[in-house]
Parts: sequence; C-alpha cells; structure tokens
Amino acid sequence: MNTFGTLFRLTTFGESHGTALGGIVDGCPAGLVIDHSLIAAELLRRREGDTPSPLTTRRHEADEVEWLSGILDGKTLGTPIAFVIHNSDQRPADYEALRDCFRPGHADYTYMQKYGTRDYRGGGRASGRETAARVVGGSIAKMWLKEQHVAFRTHRDGRLITCTISGLPAGIGSPIFDRLNARLAYAVLSIPSAQSFVTGENPNDWQLPNDQYPDQWTPQSTGSNLTLTNHCGGIQGGISNGMPVVFHVGFHSPVTQPQGMTCRKADGTLTTVAPGGRHDVDHSSRLPVIVESMAALAVADSLMAAKAYNQQP
Amino acid sequence: MNTFGTLFRLTTFGESHGTALGGIVDGCPAGLVIDHSLIAAELLRRREGDTPSPLTTRRHEADEVEWLSGILDGKTLGTPIAFVIHNSDQRPADYEALRDCFRPGHADYTYMQKYGTRDYRGGGRASGRETAARVVGGSIAKMWLKEQHVAFRTHRDGRLITCTISGLPAGIGSPIFDRLNARLAYAVLSIPSAQSFVTGENPNDWQLPNDQYPDQWTPQSTGSNLTLTNHCGGIQGGISNGMPVVFHVGFHSPVTQPQGMTCRKADGTLTTVAPGGRHDVDHSSRLPVIVESMAALAVADSLMAAKAYNQQP
Amino acid sequence: MNTFGTLFRLTTFGESHGTALGGIVDGCPAGLVIDHSLIAAELLRRREGDTPSPLTTRRHEADEVEWLSGILDGKTLGTPIAFVIHNSDQRPADYEALRDCFRPGHADYTYMQKYGTRDYRGGGRASGRETAARVVGGSIAKMWLKEQHVAFRTHRDGRLITCTISGLPAGIGSPIFDRLNARLAYAVLSIPSAQSFVTGENPNDWQLPNDQYPDQWTPQSTGSNLTLTNHCGGIQGGISNGMPVVFHVGFHSPVTQPQGMTCRKADGTLTTVAPGGRHDVDHSSRLPVIVESMAALAVADSLMAAKAYNQQP
Amino acid sequence: MNTFGTLFRLTTFGESHGTALGGIVDGCPAGLVIDHSLIAAELLRRREGDTPSPLTTRRHEADEVEWLSGILDGKTLGTPIAFVIHNSDQRPADYEALRDCFRPGHADYTYMQKYGTRDYRGGGRASGRETAARVVGGSIAKMWLKEQHVAFRTHRDGRLITCTISGLPAGIGSPIFDRLNARLAYAVLSIPSAQSFVTGENPNDWQLPNDQYPDQWTPQSTGSNLTLTNHCGGIQGGISNGMPVVFHVGFHSPVTQPQGMTCRKADGTLTTVAPGGRHDVDHSSRLPVIVESMAALAVADSLMAAKAYNQQP
Repeated sequence: MNTFGTLFRLTTFGESHGTALGGIVDGCPAGLVIDHSLIAAELLRRREGDTPSPLTTRRHEADEVEWLSGILDGKTLGTPIAFVIHNSDQRPADYEALRDCFRPGHADYTYMQKYGTRDYRGGGRASGRETAARVVGGSIAKMWLKEQHVAFRTHRDGRLITCTISGLPAGIGSPIFDRLNARLAYAVLSIPSAQSFVTGENPNDWQLPNDQYPDQWTPQSTGSNLTLTNHCGGIQGGISNGMPVVFHVGFHSPVTQPQGMTCRKADGTLTTVAPGGRHDVDHSSRLPVIVESMAALAVADSLMAAKAYNQQP
Repeated sequence: MNTFGTLFRLTTFGESHGTALGGIVDGCPAGLVIDHSLIAAELLRRREGDTPSPLTTRRHEADEVEWLSGILDGKTLGTPIAFVIHNSDQRPADYEALRDCFRPGHADYTYMQKYGTRDYRGGGRASGRETAARVVGGSIAKMWLKEQHVAFRTHRDGRLITCTISGLPAGIGSPIFDRLNARLAYAVLSIPSAQSFVTGENPNDWQLPNDQYPDQWTPQSTGSNLTLTNHCGGIQGGISNGMPVVFHVGFHSPVTQPQGMTCRKADGTLTTVAPGGRHDVDHSSRLPVIVESMAALAVADSLMAAKAYNQQP
Repeated sequence: MNTFGTLFRLTTFGESHGTALGGIVDGCPAGLVIDHSLIAAELLRRREGDTPSPLTTRRHEADEVEWLSGILDGKTLGTPIAFVIHNSDQRPADYEALRDCFRPGHADYTYMQKYGTRDYRGGGRASGRETAARVVGGSIAKMWLKEQHVAFRTHRDGRLITCTISGLPAGIGSPIFDRLNARLAYAVLSIPSAQSFVTGENPNDWQLPNDQYPDQWTPQSTGSNLTLTNHCGGIQGGISNGMPVVFHVGFHSPVTQPQGMTCRKADGTLTTVAPGGRHDVDHSSRLPVIVESMAALAVADSLMAAKAYNQQP
Repeated sequence: MNTFGTLFRLTTFGESHGTALGGIVDGCPAGLVIDHSLIAAELLRRREGDTPSPLTTRRHEADEVEWLSGILDGKTLGTPIAFVIHNSDQRPADYEALRDCFRPGHADYTYMQKYGTRDYRGGGRASGRETAARVVGGSIAKMWLKEQHVAFRTHRDGRLITCTISGLPAGIGSPIFDRLNARLAYAVLSIPSAQSFVTGENPNDWQLPNDQYPDQWTPQSTGSNLTLTNHCGGIQGGISNGMPVVFHVGFHSPVTQPQGMTCRKADGTLTTVAPGGRHDVDHSSRLPVIVESMAALAVADSLMAAKAYNQQP
C-alpha cells in the first residue's frame, strides 16, 4: 500500500512520466509553521545530491511544490496537507523501446506479474522520482520533530548511508512488533535499491563477542550520555534509551546499463535494448536526504504514539 | 503494539514469569488441518535449539499448548485461534536482586522509561520466552503456506541466520511502502537481539559493482530458474519474482553476563549484581525456527493480500 | 483520520475555500476502465441534487476532475489514483464575519477545541463540499463493483435516504467487529448531517415481535430470493446472505439560518451574525449520491477482503 | 476481523461451546489499578440482566475470569492483558439436530457461505456468549476512563437502549471518517441483534425542522452546560462539544423460536427443528452493559488518539 505510518501518515502517488506526483500528509499536528525554504533545500538535495556530480541524471525540473490544502496563513490546520509536484519534463517517447520488454535488475517483470499491466515509461511508479513525495512528507515530519529537539544527520561511505538521530528521548518505540529498529528498517528498506539495514554505532557492532557487546552505564548520567559506548545504536528491547539512534542502510548499485541491457520479452525470449531516457550511473549522493526523510516519518509516528501511550512523555 | 499482520494476524501476550503466554491467530482461512506434531517439533527446536548444546538455558518446560478456540474436529473454523502455554517452571524469587536495578544491554531501563513500571522477573515481556507464541503462530502460517507449496529453510553461520523461502510465486509484495523485503525486515528485526538484515543470495551481494549486480535472465525460464544469479534475493521493486527469496539476519550476542553485571539504580548510581535465574550463553541455535516463524507470518500476510489484489493470483 | 477502508482505500483532502479538494484511491485493482461520464454524472447529482431545486446552494463550479496518476490509456494501473478538483469560485471575503465566532449547530466550536485553529471560510474542512472527493472515490468503487454485478439505488423520503444494494453475493462481511452493517453505518454516518442508521427492508423492521421478525426461507431458492421477507436487510450475523442489502440513513436539517444566527465568541459572549456565503436551505436531494458513494466504498472494501479470506469467493 | 480499536484495542476469541472464550486488551496504559469487583459486577449484569427475569437463558456459569498476563501486583504493566473465561457448562449434544440445517434469522447460513464450515453448537462464534469478552474489555476501558472522569449510563425502553456518556471533554473524535458518532455506531452495531443507531438527546431529534434543530448556546457556559438543548447528542462535525454524548441503539427480538423453526438444509429443502440448548426469549435486560462496554472501548480509543493529536488535551 501507498501509506506509511499509523498516526503521522504519508500517502503518496505518481508515476515518473505521468501528470504529477505528490502526496497527502495526514495527522500532522495543527499550528506547525511550514518552512518552505527547508522543503526546497531538501528537494534540491534529492535532485542534485549532497555532492552534485556529472554522474547523476539529467532531468531538469525545478520540483515546484503546489500546496492544495491543510495550510492557512503559513500554518498547518491539523487537516490533511496535500501537495503536488508536476512532471513538466516528460519524455515518454524515450521509453517506447521498453514497452514490451523487461529489463534485468528492474521491477518491470514483477509489476507485470502483480498487476498484469505497468507504466513502462521511465519506470512508472517504480522510478526513483517517486521519492520526491517522500522528501516533502519527511520535511514536514522534520519540522515537527525539530520543535521536539529531534534532528537527523547522515554520513555516506560508499553506498552505505549512516543516519544518526539525536535528541530522541528515552521510551520511544514499542516492544514486540513495533520496535523502533524494526520500524526504521521498514521505513528505509522501502527506498528503491535499499538492501541492507543494521543498527549500532558501527555496522559491525552486532558481531562483538559476549563480553564486549553490552554498553556499560555512565555513572550518574542520562540522555545522550547514558552509556559509555553505543553498540546497541540507542535502542534496547525496541525502545529508545536516550542515546543517539544510529543505523546504517546499504544500497545496491543502479541497475540500468546505459550501454545496453539484455531484456526479456513476454514470450521468454531475450533481446538487447539500449535504454533511452535518463538514468543514474551513481545515485548515492542523492540517497541521504531520502533516508533522513523516511527516518523522520518513522520517528514522528513513533513519537506521536508515545504521546498517546507513555507514562513519561 | 502486539499484533503482527494486516490480514493474517498474530496477537501475542505474556510475561516470562507470569501465569502464561500465548496468542490469537486471526484471519487464518477455514478448513486448514492443524498438524500438532509440527507445532511440537517447532517448539522443541525453539526450546533446545537445532543443535542442542550445554550452553542453552536450563528451563525445563514441555511447552504444552492448550487450544481454546477456532478449531473443530482438527480443522480451523476461520474464527480466531487462541492458544496458551502455561508457565509451569516459574521461579520469580530468582530475580529479586533485579527488582530495583537496570542491567546493561537489557530492556530494563527502556521499559521503565516507557511505562513507569516493569515486570522485573526474568525479563518480563522482554524475555526470549515470548517467542514461543511466535513459533506457534508461525507454525500455523507454515501449514497454510505448505498448501501453497511455500517452504522455509535456514542456515546458521556464527550468529547470522540465512533464510531461504522457496515456492513463492512471482507478484507477491507491494511496491512503495509494503515491499516484501521491508515486510520481512520488519518481521525478523522484531526478534529480540536481531540487529542486521540484508536480502540477496549472499549477504554482500548489494556491494557488487554496476556491471555485476543485475541478475541476468535465463532464456525461456520462469519460476525458481528465472535468472542466472540471485543477487536481488528474489525480490525486485519490493515484489517477488519467482526465484527463491533469500535474506540474512544478524543477532548480537546474549547480553546477560552470568559472572555478574554492573547495573544502574534508579538514582543513577551503579551496583554489581550476579544474575540469578537462567540465561543463555549462546542462543544462536534456537534462533532459526524463530526467524522462520516470523518470515512465515510475513509471507502469509503478503500472500493473502495478493489474493485480494493481484490480477494473476 | 482521512482514510476510509483497509484494502480498497480512499484518502481525501481539501478545505471548502482552499486551493482544491481531492483524494487518492489506493488498492483499486489494475485493468479497470475508468468511465469518466459516470463520474461527471455522479458529481452533477451531488452538485445539483437528484431533483434540482431553487433551494440548493448557488456555487457555480463545474467540478472538473484533474487526474494525476494511476491511469494509463484509460485503464487503472493498480497504483494510487490521485485526483484534484480545483476551487475556482472561492469567495473567502464572504466569511470574514465568521472568523472569530462559532455558529450554533456547526463544527466551528469543536474544530477549535480539537485543533486550536480552524479554517473559518465556508466551513473549511467541515464543509459539505468535501463530499465531492467521496463521490469521485465512490464512483471508482462503483465501476469495479459493476463488474461484479453489484449495483446501488436510493430512494428519498423526507430526509431519510434508503439505499438498496443488489447483486452482492452471500458471505460478504465479517462476524464480530467488521460486520457488514457496522461497516455501512461507519461509512454513511461519516457524511455531514447524518444522524441515524438502520438496516432492514423497512426502517421499523427491527421493532417487529418475536414471531414475525425472523425471515423465513423460500424453499429451494438462493440469492436474491432466499427468504420470503427481508426484515434483516440482507445481513445475518454481520454477513450478507445474498438478499438485497437495505439500509436507511437519516440526516438532520441544514443548520445555517440565512436570516441570522446567535453565535458564540471565544470569550463566551454571544453575538448575532448574518451569514454571508452560500448555504443550502434544503440539501436532501444532494444526499443520495453521497450515501451511495460511501456505501460503494464500504462494499468494495468488504468484497476485496472476502477475496483474501473466503472459502467460496 | 476480531480486533476493535486502533490504540486501545480489544481482540476476542471463542466459540459458545468450545473450551473457552476471552480476549487480549492491548494498549491499556500502565499503572491502572484493576478493579475486579467491577468486572464481576459487569459480567453479572451481562449474564442475568439489569432486571433478572425468568425469560433469560438458563446457562449457569459463574463467568470466572482467569488473568494470564499484563498485570503485576494488581496494576497494569502496559503490556497485553490476556484473560480467559472457561466454558464449564457445555452441552454440545443439545445441538446435534442443528448440525446440518440453517435456522431462520440466525447466522448459520451466512457463516457456512463465508467459511465453508461452522461450529453448529449453540451458535458457535455467533453466540451472544461471545459478548462476555467484550464486557471484560469494556470494563477495563471504563476503569481508565473513570480516571479521566468519563462515565456511562444506560436507559432501556422496549428494546431501545439509550446510552449517555458524561464527562467527555470537547475535542474528542475526528472529522471526516473517524467521527465520534460513526465510531460509536461501528462499535455498538457490532453487537449481535443490533439494528438501528441514532445520536441526539431524543431518538427523533434529527427530524426536527430547520429552525428548531440547531442547539443554541448557553451564554458564558462551557462543558456539560454549553448549549440550551442537545439535539446533536454532544457531537458536532464528528467531534465532541463537551455536552453529554447521547445515542440510542435498537435491537431486534431474539430469533430462536423455542417452539420450533422451519430450517433450511444444504440442498435447499426445508425441515422443522425444535431447538435444544438454551435460548433467550427476551434478552433486552442483558444488553445495556454490552452497549456500555462497546461505547467505552470506542471512547477510550478516541480519547487516546486525542492525546496524540490534539492541541488542547
């Protein structure tokens, strides 16, 4: 389904070369000031990457966000916030060669198996362009979280993105099935190309032996200084302990081979196709803001649940 | 929350040293024959491990399952299936020393932050014993999936459990937020001690370079022979492609130190406690059946959703 | 929340005098042909009523639907269907007098209590105009249901709307909490002004004495001829029995008094205000299509759940 | 499905003549003192009716509640509260005559259409006995609500139950699809035999003409004295206004005819059966506590959502 979250919810829509993409943020508290410059900056990070490179795709669109509802005099009303980003630079003709064949490493074949049809133009719903709606939704979550002193920062090493969430109080997340780590994994593994997830200060902390793994208490301290190490990544038993929450998410390489791909046709025969359209050779510098956005949506939802449930808010 | 799944649902309850633990399976189709020997065998795998070892805990309970509803003449009715496993070997007195202190590496502190109270006896709700209810629920999911020719098998290497799901047809899972990989991660990262998750035939497949990562098509083949390699772990765009679904989940080591632990008291001071009770030194041989159980619950739920939605069931 | 349904889902947005209203239909099966003339006809029924009258409001807008996603070559893709209806005839200035006072019988006061703010222009989110998005979503549900031979028809008597759903097979709905009658009530009582709900061929059938209430079987018949009477309104134990499903929903009168209203100010004092803007004196002829739309959304959702669960689909 | 609620949730199980019935309350805040005498009193109200009568059924069971989890030292832990009521007075042999035939007015036929099987003993899952689990869950909701000064009272007139909820603050409920009135209707129309629902001080208030319907403000008053009348039943735009919330729910008569019924066999032929077992001739005095229980569950869930969302809690 195309909705993320239980209380703070984002529902998205849009195909890469359809009319528009966008979404609805439902459950955002009333009275929040919308910071349009933050949203524009986040969308720029997504479009051009944290370190703009000649290897990212050449789609030239300003990602202008049109706001349709939920905001009055610059503040949220508590009602659904709908937004649209129009696809102005559509070139469906670029993709005619892909109409009847399935590329390797793509979602072409699986969409057809699921739906019996697909939008073959630029990946359709499976395009990375869909993540723009997540960035808008995530930006709104970030604004609300900033008021609670929760902040996100990412570091990129190869195609592994490390995300650190600071300021999250202890007691967020639920034991058993709604563990904060499980929610974060569910959130960021929904990003196209994401394939691995791990919590902990370092990605290999979980491999530490018995006598080194448990984080020892800092005497008389609480909050972001609670333990001497952070091998558990700020989460114990699925619940935040007040230390920074740290996770790492790994992405496989872009699967489109600009020089040509051996595609499968409906009858099972193979054919070589040189993809038209625009495709990333390296997209990793565009990933951090998407990771932060999904993490912000997950954290906002968990924090809102804590307001309903927790004894110590 | 303590419910997993949207259509095929398991709700669990129970503290380690309370009266009982158990659960309710809701949404299981009617007419399914309950194989009690499978459930007993799976519970035995959980209790003693796939390779019984002197290092696993010494709790001697038969894990007798009492069935309360949802079954008539050995077959499911379509109504909720409630089951209870009584805690016959409770020794709450063993845990008195832990009443007022928080162990390092455990959920003691975070439960207290969240709820303002906790059951300090043997980990309470955070105990690994809770997973017995998941194994019963997962066994029922497995029985239903077996009728659809879906099977699970695990391999253990250190504390990394590899799970292979065979027989799953193409088209299962949803794009965007309910991707099959994200659902599987959400499922298995809810297991106590689980800390890493990755899809792919091998855990490092996602790190392959551009020209090696995409799985190439096998000419004229479908199903479990669709591609020449399986770097994507049987999932493209969040949807199964008919190849075996393969994921790996990593668990940190047990956090209880039988020789003693430096615990934190409510006032922030530290104290050394030698844990009474029973604790695993190595629990990894008990994990495979729990991983399979959670994977079975996730797959049953996704397969049932596909019956509602898909064009090609 | 602003989402209706579990599998076939409508999420709506929009304030009466904001930029636009609209919604996202998620979970609609792929391959459905969109009948734009049906949608236009249904929106016309909503705007002008089944029997156009000089007493309905004078907002002159064509309700042009802009489609943003989920449709290719006239057919659904299985992905989210987003649509927008722009508010072209906004006159916020008409409502300045209402900025700081709460009208009797309206949602002005309760929105302010809930959100601490409100869009005072024409009722904001609480305006009946919001129902246009429901009619679009309901029309899509109707198209899908028409393929399954399910049809809706309404009869209006005063302000009581009787809705008859024909063609629904036996076995739809769930016992206990997701009863078909409870789902229908939840659906139609979400319509502004709706205040009563009852199932049964006639609205007073539930008051029949013991010996007259139970519907007797028609020998050798099934489907829409199963019983000699239909006092239960086609639903037994929360599940359809194959007879026509019949319910009645009662609406209170419009609450705006064009001649002036005694309003409450934030400090508790009262003041008399003559409403500007446009307001219905009698809106009952506009209600049938909204009732049918919500019923169609509820039935589509229940029918889709039955595809996942039922033994006899 | 067998779960009610989003945040404060009750999941129930059990067939009338199976081993037991019961449920799991999930989401109840920690630290709540369980008042066992209240639960016993409520179960007695359910079993014998508010005005015990020779016309109610003669099942003699003490409804002993066994508590399995979620409570320590008499207080809730925040974890799931599981409870079981064993069926000690089972007489399945009484129902052999009903094994292969469907009674008029019952759920026998629809269960078979849905599931392809059914528990024919005493109505199975469709039995009124299932409501005992709702009363236990509702009692826990009432205990929590009592701490928030919310109370329930019912009045019975014929088979119409009027329920008045006092102490509910303004701002509870959501506009659009989660209106408080729609949630209450969804809750109480899930009770077996419930067929009509209406909000308002009197059941016919919604029929008042234009100039009488809107409740006028009481100058300078708030809370339970906000308006001079209460035709809207304390709910405006789906949200509570601080006045008492008043609704009425109508139940059809018991459908079992002790003197014999013309039943339908699987082949469509009819046969006359005199029901064995125990059946109410008049069950209306047992309904008030069930109505209150379902209303309490709905209100607890809405109040908890308000803690997460509202500006003015």
